[in-house]
Amino acid sequence: MKTKLTIVAALAFAAAAGADEGQWQPHQLTQLQDEFDRVGIELPASQVADLNQYPLNAVVGLGYCSASFVSPKGLVVTNHHCAYGAIQNNSTPDNNLIAKGFLAGTMAGELPAGPQERLYVTESVEDVTAQVTGSLADDLHGKARYDAIAAKRKALIGECETDPNYRCSVRAFHHGLEYFLIKQLMIKDVRLVYAPAEALGNFGGDIDNFEYPRHTADFTFVRGYVGKDGKPAEYSEDNVPYQPKSFLKVNASGVKLGDGVLVAGYPGRTSRYKLADEVNYSANWYYPTLLDTYYMTLDTIAEATNGREAAEVKYASRVKSINNRLKKLLGLQDGFKATDIEGIKRAQEQQYLNWFGKEPSRQSYTVAHQQLQALLTDAHAQQQRQFYYNYAINSDLLNAAIRLYRLAKENEKPDAEREMGYQQRDLPMLKARLQRLQTKFDPQVDQALWASYLATYVKQDAARHVADLDKALGLNSQISNAELKALVADIYDKTELADADTRVAWIGKATSDFEQSTDPLIQLAVALYDANMTIEAEQKEMAGRLAEVRPQYMEAVIAYNNAQGKPVYPDANSTLRVSYAQVDGYPAADGVYKTPFTSLRGLVAKHTGEKPFIATDKVLMAHQNKAYGDYYRGDLGLAAVTCGLLSFGCEATAARPLEVNSVPVNFLSSADTTGGNSGSPVMNGKGELVGLNFDSTYESITKDWYFNGKITRAIHVDIRYVLWLMTEVDNAGYLLDEMTLVQ
Amino acid sequence: MKTKLTIVAALAFAAAAGADEGQWQPHQLTQLQDEFDRVGIELPASQVADLNQYPLNAVVGLGYCSASFVSPKGLVVTNHHCAYGAIQNNSTPDNNLIAKGFLAGTMAGELPAGPQERLYVTESVEDVTAQVTGSLADDLHGKARYDAIAAKRKALIGECETDPNYRCSVRAFHHGLEYFLIKQLMIKDVRLVYAPAEALGNFGGDIDNFEYPRHTADFTFVRGYVGKDGKPAEYSEDNVPYQPKSFLKVNASGVKLGDGVLVAGYPGRTSRYKLADEVNYSANWYYPTLLDTYYMTLDTIAEATNGREAAEVKYASRVKSINNRLKKLLGLQDGFKATDIEGIKRAQEQQYLNWFGKEPSRQSYTVAHQQLQALLTDAHAQQQRQFYYNYAINSDLLNAAIRLYRLAKENEKPDAEREMGYQQRDLPMLKARLQRLQTKFDPQVDQALWASYLATYVKQDAARHVADLDKALGLNSQISNAELKALVADIYDKTELADADTRVAWIGKATSDFEQSTDPLIQLAVALYDANMTIEAEQKEMAGRLAEVRPQYMEAVIAYNNAQGKPVYPDANSTLRVSYAQVDGYPAADGVYKTPFTSLRGLVAKHTGEKPFIATDKVLMAHQNKAYGDYYRGDLGLAAVTCGLLSFGCEATAARPLEVNSVPVNFLSSADTTGGNSGSPVMNGKGELVGLNFDSTYESITKDWYFNGKITRAIHVDIRYVLWLMTEVDNAGYLLDEMTLVQ
Repeated sequence: MKTKLTIVAALAFAAAAGADEGQWQPHQLTQLQDEFDRVGIELPASQVADLNQYPLNAVVGLGYCSASFVSPKGLVVTNHHCAYGAIQNNSTPDNNLIAKGFLAGTMAGELPAGPQERLYVTESVEDVTAQVTGSLADDLHGKARYDAIAAKRKALIGECETDPNYRCSVRAFHHGLEYFLIKQLMIKDVRLVYAPAEALGNFGGDIDNFEYPRHTADFTFVRGYVGKDGKPAEYSEDNVPYQPKSFLKVNASGVKLGDGVLVAGYPGRTSRYKLADEVNYSANWYYPTLLDTYYMTLDTIAEATNGREAAEVKYASRVKSINNRLKKLLGLQDGFKATDIEGIKRAQEQQYLNWFGKEPSRQSYTVAHQQLQALLTDAHAQQQRQFYYNYAINSDLLNAAIRLYRLAKENEKPDAEREMGYQQRDLPMLKARLQRLQTKFDPQVDQALWASYLATYVKQDAARHVADLDKALGLNSQISNAELKALVADIYDKTELADADTRVAWIGKATSDFEQSTDPLIQLAVALYDANMTIEAEQKEMAGRLAEVRPQYMEAVIAYNNAQGKPVYPDANSTLRVSYAQVDGYPAADGVYKTPFTSLRGLVAKHTGEKPFIATDKVLMAHQNKAYGDYYRGDLGLAAVTCGLLSFGCEATAARPLEVNSVPVNFLSSADTTGGNSGSPVMNGKGELVGLNFDSTYESITKDWYFNGKITRAIHVDIRYVLWLMTEVDNAGYLLDEMTLVQ
Repeated sequence: MKTKLTIVAALAFAAAAGADEGQWQPHQLTQLQDEFDRVGIELPASQVADLNQYPLNAVVGLGYCSASFVSPKGLVVTNHHCAYGAIQNNSTPDNNLIAKGFLAGTMAGELPAGPQERLYVTESVEDVTAQVTGSLADDLHGKARYDAIAAKRKALIGECETDPNYRCSVRAFHHGLEYFLIKQLMIKDVRLVYAPAEALGNFGGDIDNFEYPRHTADFTFVRGYVGKDGKPAEYSEDNVPYQPKSFLKVNASGVKLGDGVLVAGYPGRTSRYKLADEVNYSANWYYPTLLDTYYMTLDTIAEATNGREAAEVKYASRVKSINNRLKKLLGLQDGFKATDIEGIKRAQEQQYLNWFGKEPSRQSYTVAHQQLQALLTDAHAQQQRQFYYNYAINSDLLNAAIRLYRLAKENEKPDAEREMGYQQRDLPMLKARLQRLQTKFDPQVDQALWASYLATYVKQDAARHVADLDKALGLNSQISNAELKALVADIYDKTELADADTRVAWIGKATSDFEQSTDPLIQLAVALYDANMTIEAEQKEMAGRLAEVRPQYMEAVIAYNNAQGKPVYPDANSTLRVSYAQVDGYPAADGVYKTPFTSLRGLVAKHTGEKPFIATDKVLMAHQNKAYGDYYRGDLGLAAVTCGLLSFGCEATAARPLEVNSVPVNFLSSADTTGGNSGSPVMNGKGELVGLNFDSTYESITKDWYFNGKITRAIHVDIRYVLWLMTEVDNAGYLLDEMTLVQ
């Protein structure tokens, strides 16, 4: 028995507040002027809705993170963890910029971030629903439908990318109810400008990940460069700083409790409109199964790298990433226990169904819901069937072999008809990935992982097996772990794919070259091709069926909400979105309330001198010397509302209980964010930069499924901490000269 | 470098608030009517000051804990952990009342708590300073002074105890500036009435000890019985319930945020008036040294009981007690790091010295401070010299031998001249202790502990050695641990003191019997007698010197405070005290505020099904069925003050952030408490019972040295949780019939 938020209470709440929920497409904001007024955003909603106006034309995507321009010279600020690769690329054992931090000092001192670092600026978003799905024949179902949609999308992208300065994509919104063509300027020369020492930039490390109170300087400055003609160009010494259409003013006064804020960025993926059945499936099968796999993977890596530091380093970032996903899964599990999200969703669906039932004209909505439920049963069964096979072919080298052979197969078609990911435009990325693998891969660990995945696979029911794999490797349910290890070791003895040049050399070879190869992994990739294509076809069939039914259900959901006078934001899909919110704390547990600001004082109190809790000597010294610069703050609005909460009376201002009384370091807001929002500018009501989004609280993890406004909080770096480090600690004050600071 | 509350800020605070600080002698309350008005106590201070009026004549001492009468039939409520011994005495492996809990059902079903359980009711407190120190000659110093004071105290006690129904004591207040004769009615027949299951009564166990949020049903009901003549009597079936002079009404409405409360009880020991030098010594030598000893003791017990469950059980309560003290020491260490208490004390002393210096008439105060500082240097050196020797003779059996020989020595004097603890009045307790040792002692563990203490002792400098011990055991700094173990094993082979009857049989024997004994531990006790007496004489010399100087310093402190218009409460000394306070939360860390109520909802959320986090099936069921009885509460005043703290607006009452919305379980107040206050009644402004004190927060542990009103909070069982368990869970509602419930 576990405590659950009662469904009735939760729905009552959702109705009453729901308030700060929403990752809105910019154009939707025009419907939300009342909400802007409510939370205290002074910029007109219509201005924020416009991609070509301040502040949205200063917002930047990194592909996996968000950022913003903060100077007319292309200076960009994002999270430290988003720029980690750029810092790593410039680090050597002798000159470890990750540990030391980096400050260019002058533009000439700025370091190339590396070929994979890009800045994307969304310049236009065009509704292309009509072009993508408008002319699809009604009898086009399943894979045929999927393929038809893919072909339309590819065509639109190809047309758009005739201008090589742009990267284009066609994204499905509302799970395929709408499609938008997104055109992004792509800046290819990105340089590292200023990163704090990792001790500060990643203060708290994995321990504090998804936790609050938090004290992390999770920010880094980079700069976009372009050719002398002002157009994007690959790195060259001759390049000049990019002049953005606008850049965010920085408000050095920051925010206080209750202030309205805007968060703009590229949230990756949410599941807000999924059905109760999907919560159930995830909570009871998918997440637990994934957790088991993560634990096994971590154990296997730990064992296989034990005592081999070089191997450990190679897998460090993968371990970090798995740990991150693992903690997220644990947060989801705990969150599902604390709040009956399945029940809430089921009650919500019932509300919808009741409404659908009221008018004969809405019968199609009821049917869509029924069809979606039925389809999901199939989809979940399909995923369960394929889950263990996917891991069983998931060694890094086998994976490379499979991709290489697939490339050869796709190359037999005209470019436009090739599978996405294998087109001409994808080759540089594919090649880079095959090469970069070398820095993240150790044959011994890869073997151990593969053997462990195979060991789990062979224990599964026949329905979850793929005959071609069993046949190719001679697998059966009786095979022992030792035999599997020997089998894998034998393959690794014979394959030459562990060599980067060998791997890359396979790019562009003909299918016949593969089919004649004696390399056992290439042979295996060839042997599995038909099975993999069958599986892919099944997946496309399912995707095509879902792409037909889910939009119908979304249409019903939108109709219901519109009838209640509510606009509906689409699930996140890595496109530019805007959230509005307020600076706020939250009740974290029975008897525990988290207040919305942390401080330098708290940072120093957490300092143990041992990783990941090291406040650097410079910070400790500045704290001791009270070198607060202009960034000391008192109560930040907490005193006013808590006057009377404590027994000291409001006159005892010397000892306010919730005071900051130091430099604010991190703060909380009710902003609706998710992965991909890292680095997002947090702006005050005037659109001035007051912080950077970088994480969410543990209790917020379930927000990907259900936004519980009562407890959901995003964690932001306070701009005052950034400015304080720049001016009082790191001598980076010269950068302020090109920025526009306001009070 | 560590963060410290700046001294200036702390002093400013102390001046501004200080407010709820104070463990007041009842008679002092008459000076505090303004404070009663401020926190909202409706009873006149003069009434609460009177031992013979409600509510103080309903307050009970247990010797080591506090309690209160709650019915005219002698029903008493205290903490579960205070009544633990009484429950344990009635438990068997087959009928484990600790685990199951106990409910008598009828008076006939009430079980004898055991011979060591007593109820004390303070009936009079008389200032006897004049009798104790009024006639001491000015040239009486050191041990002579100590002995003279001890003789006066013994004489006063002897006179008072001519009435065998009373237990008397003469306690030093303000470290000997004042003495009071305390006369307590002693009820000797105590019976167990109702105890919740340990899973609830000790929910959270050692993990939650000193922690908040807390969810513990730390209460138990017992009843006092007396002879048919109404006078205290040892247990007899014929005894009748005691009729107390009054008993506390129980207020079923409980309290809400900001309500004034009174806490009355027997706090054990505080060090509020000690000097900065004493903080320094404790923080830097005494506490760390003690910590090392605790860790060593725990390790040794763990190793020596490993795999022997019976031995483990015997040491379980000792391990629990050491763990408790260890956590307290860790809290002190952390607290000293968080707040510069030494600096605060030093600044405070400087304030005193400045004031002393302003008038020539105050020169004696300055001298007293100087003398005390000098004396403390000697006292600390003395303690350091004796510390390791004290442990080196601290095996349970050697300890028994030393006490027995001492008793024989004391018996050679007339009773009145004997050392306190060895008088006729002490013999029953001494005998009981020698007998009870059997249940808490295992020869193998005792040997291991003794050998480990000896091993630490032999490594110390010569100055910390006692020649007689070294000679008797043949110790030197070269002796190996193995040799020590062999030496100890040999002694245990030969001693007969491990037998309880043998030990007890030594009571009353002549010194010559000891001196002729061949028992190696008796021989050792005889060999160490002179050295121990020398050490005791040194200690008495020091105590006598301190008893001369510390009162002079306290006089100075009191003069200073009185000049500021402030009364001064004495350090705790296990006598009846009263604190006034408010229901309140506290800022626990940067970004974390602890709210003052926990709830049944939170209890169930903490339930893991594994010790110590088991909410019983009955509780889980009642929670699930919403069987809240009359005890469901909404926001308890939290909503009103936090309206505006969150972004939902005050109209969204369905979702108040800090609501209880369940049965309140535990709550916090700013009451000034310490060990000994366990079980203290927490009363509302009318003196009606609203809770039981049972613990303090981790951040409060340093309050024994310095009461920081900003963060110091006591943790109480909410009476509504008690009543809810009685009525909705445990069928104990019949007890309410004899209680007076008000709303």
